[in-house]
Amino acid sequence: MTTSKKENNACIFTIFGATGDLTKRKLIPAVFTLYEQGRLPEGFTVIAIGRRDKTMDGYRDEIHGFMRDILNRDIDDDLWKEFRNRIIYQKMNFLEENGYENLNMLSRKINKENNTAGNRIYYLATAPEFFEIIIRKLHENKMLKNKNSWQRVMVEKPFGSDLPTARELNDNITDMLEEDKIFRIDHYLGKEMIQNILSLRFGNSIFEPLWNNRYIDSIQIISTEKLGVGDRGSYYEKTGVIKDMLQNHILQMLSLIAMEPPVNLSSEAIRDEKVKVLQALRPFTKESVKSDVVTGQYGKSNVFAAYRNEDRVSADSKTDTFIALKTCIDNFRWGGVPVYIFAGKRLSEKTTRIVIHFKKLPGINFYKEFKNTESNVLVIRVQPEEGIFFRINTKHQGNDFFIGPVEMDYCQNCGYNSNSPEAYERLILEALNNNSALFTRWDELEYSWRFIDSLYRSRENEVLNYPNYEAGGKGPVNAYELIEKDNRKWWDKGGEKNDLI
Amino acid sequence: MTTSKKENNACIFTIFGATGDLTKRKLIPAVFTLYEQGRLPEGFTVIAIGRRDKTMDGYRDEIHGFMRDILNRDIDDDLWKEFRNRIIYQKMNFLEENGYENLNMLSRKINKENNTAGNRIYYLATAPEFFEIIIRKLHENKMLKNKNSWQRVMVEKPFGSDLPTARELNDNITDMLEEDKIFRIDHYLGKEMIQNILSLRFGNSIFEPLWNNRYIDSIQIISTEKLGVGDRGSYYEKTGVIKDMLQNHILQMLSLIAMEPPVNLSSEAIRDEKVKVLQALRPFTKESVKSDVVTGQYGKSNVFAAYRNEDRVSADSKTDTFIALKTCIDNFRWGGVPVYIFAGKRLSEKTTRIVIHFKKLPGINFYKEFKNTESNVLVIRVQPEEGIFFRINTKHQGNDFFIGPVEMDYCQNCGYNSNSPEAYERLILEALNNNSALFTRWDELEYSWRFIDSLYRSRENEVLNYPNYEAGGKGPVNAYELIEKDNRKWWDKGGEKNDLI
Repeated sequence: MTTSKKENNACIFTIFGATGDLTKRKLIPAVFTLYEQGRLPEGFTVIAIGRRDKTMDGYRDEIHGFMRDILNRDIDDDLWKEFRNRIIYQKMNFLEENGYENLNMLSRKINKENNTAGNRIYYLATAPEFFEIIIRKLHENKMLKNKNSWQRVMVEKPFGSDLPTARELNDNITDMLEEDKIFRIDHYLGKEMIQNILSLRFGNSIFEPLWNNRYIDSIQIISTEKLGVGDRGSYYEKTGVIKDMLQNHILQMLSLIAMEPPVNLSSEAIRDEKVKVLQALRPFTKESVKSDVVTGQYGKSNVFAAYRNEDRVSADSKTDTFIALKTCIDNFRWGGVPVYIFAGKRLSEKTTRIVIHFKKLPGINFYKEFKNTESNVLVIRVQPEEGIFFRINTKHQGNDFFIGPVEMDYCQNCGYNSNSPEAYERLILEALNNNSALFTRWDELEYSWRFIDSLYRSRENEVLNYPNYEAGGKGPVNAYELIEKDNRKWWDKGGEKNDLI
Repeated sequence: MTTSKKENNACIFTIFGATGDLTKRKLIPAVFTLYEQGRLPEGFTVIAIGRRDKTMDGYRDEIHGFMRDILNRDIDDDLWKEFRNRIIYQKMNFLEENGYENLNMLSRKINKENNTAGNRIYYLATAPEFFEIIIRKLHENKMLKNKNSWQRVMVEKPFGSDLPTARELNDNITDMLEEDKIFRIDHYLGKEMIQNILSLRFGNSIFEPLWNNRYIDSIQIISTEKLGVGDRGSYYEKTGVIKDMLQNHILQMLSLIAMEPPVNLSSEAIRDEKVKVLQALRPFTKESVKSDVVTGQYGKSNVFAAYRNEDRVSADSKTDTFIALKTCIDNFRWGGVPVYIFAGKRLSEKTTRIVIHFKKLPGINFYKEFKNTESNVLVIRVQPEEGIFFRINTKHQGNDFFIGPVEMDYCQNCGYNSNSPEAYERLILEALNNNSALFTRWDELEYSWRFIDSLYRSRENEVLNYPNYEAGGKGPVNAYELIEKDNRKWWDKGGEKNDLI
């Protein structure tokens, strides 16, 4: 979590996939914001690599054109004039040998001009089938190692599509590149409140004593979107909600919530503990999948198209756009505490939150005057609101003695500074500072894939009656039965102002 | 805490001391508010007894005159017209025999007219020297018992001026009146947040596990006033801060904060546990008074007069207007947890709050990144704001990884309904409903006086260099040394907006 390493971090930041949405909507705006804030090292230069023909000015103007909309604020003209010179567009085919030679020459030239100390970050913002090949070409062109300087590779998701393919990809690239130079992106780890989980858990003496199966009844992770797949149909057909959300973002949040205190806050110590949570996840069986997993795919509504009618989606697609499940972390801290997950697209609300339900007061009739109390709940709001609150019970104001739930609130993105940084700003900074804590280590991936593979294996031959929930609705009916049969309910915000889903 | 007893609570409410400040500023307005809210039983009638000559209309008009100012809202004319007929002014000398006969006749007449079922509450809002004599006269005139009806006596403070005098008073009145018919007022027990302490502690599963010496570092009770003694000089000369605040309000707050969970929420079960806290208070010795107690008296400032120059105060008064002390509750739950008390008049702020400091994180250097964290604090704001907040540590918003304290807040008297009921409304209701939980039982008084007597005994022959703090200032310098030598500080609101004291 720290950025304490004091080495020279001047560098060239090379993005493969210059014309993709991620680069235009996230990476370049993040780099610009860091530049505005004076957080980039002297000489920092972006080489943006795309396959299309573009002039340097053409690409820079294109960026300028959408930057203001994306950042939703005015761009200072003078600052932009400085910044645009730090963006170099380079046309190149990822498969072509001499492209890499040219890139290397260009990099050396910039290195000399801008004093970037030979350091390079390569950001692979491409389709996943190019990850290995690009790294191989960089390796073959001796662009991954250079004495007296450092080279790092940032890799977007998805990293593999199951355990065997992820392992093969990993084996192949780690032949050429050490683990500590690979920064596997899970952009949720760059979000304010996800970074905040460790601060909350270990920076407060009141939480840790309660953070176990003696006091916690259950954990819910809820991550819903209003949007459908949009123009990403062909990507989504291959991933579905399980690979798009569960295998990465949701399991990452869970491992931060459930991990033991690390021996220190170094990248390795944190990830050592996170991976142990993933190792302790109870694998699914054919039986448990039947009782503990509900998947879904959205059908049409009056307003929205069905998933099967989305662009570049098969008309009889079996892809899951929704999942609800129950799982367990089989260790001493969490034994007996169910973890419920609810995630999907085209639901009635956009929200990501982690909900810790504390155990009820002892005995149903413990003080009959407390009959209107609700169990205590700690909610970590990840997005769109950021913050935490406790649901506590108090005597309500007035001459009636009514005790019931209220909220005790801390909002992270309210008030004077309502915009939290974009996750990618943080992630780029961390990679610049050689801090891997917010990136996924191989063994984390390995154990998350093991868990996910157990889910897929146990679902083989499952009959899916898709679509099974209405676009923009509350999700499949079965998802509610899944939790209600345990006498629990999906967090519907209780005292919060609106309905959750 | 409950008002579940369903007996007939129609009654005559007789106030001794009709023309005093308490009656005019608190009791009558409270009764009126309860009337407005429809909380009074049918036929409820007030007999207001004063020694002065007043006509019925004269007294009623006098009340009407100040009611609006005190309640700070419009008084409905029609409602007032109904209500004024329920106020009967009766001239009477408390010492005079036939006054009681007349009162009894009047009461019988009203009882017949208004169907009050023979029930009576006598409220002794007089100087304490009249408590016993009034009860005796009521007893002699057979006004304290009447079959098929109930009679209760509400007694204002101070109840005695030390253990022997309190015991004598109690022995004498309990010869005539059973303990469960005596409602000894401590109006702090009627305050919103004081009533809320039990709801918070026992209505939430998150607090009780932390509520002991393993997790709590120390407790502070702070109760300061901006006002001086005003026109109450002759009262205050006899009481001082120790009898005016500490012996009653502050020890009551402490016993609610520190008590074990009662077996149920009945008056007796709650008070059984409260008294055990008072029994466990460590008595002062000559040695501990020197190190653990600081008293003070305010001197003049540019704005305010010195205490010794107040009306009806002796020019060489040794009366304490300030006290700070450290004490301990010597039981299993609280052993080793110091309790700090800071109370006085003519200080820079009006505030009453209970501050629970949780222990610091283990080890000073537990995660160096957490160096700016502060220990967790739970503050119960009793007045003027009402509510609670936790001071917690979180990562602050932004690309710097700064972890520091913020507040997680619940305000009881903010928002749509910003006026909490006056304490006396609640207390009158509770007495009407024969619920004694919010009144002081004899053994509570006994053990609080024992503790206070140990303080007085240990201070004999103490040389007091009064005055020793400036009116409107922060209190005596020594009061800060008292806590700072333990490496602690008086709660100065940390993140809160203003300075405390």
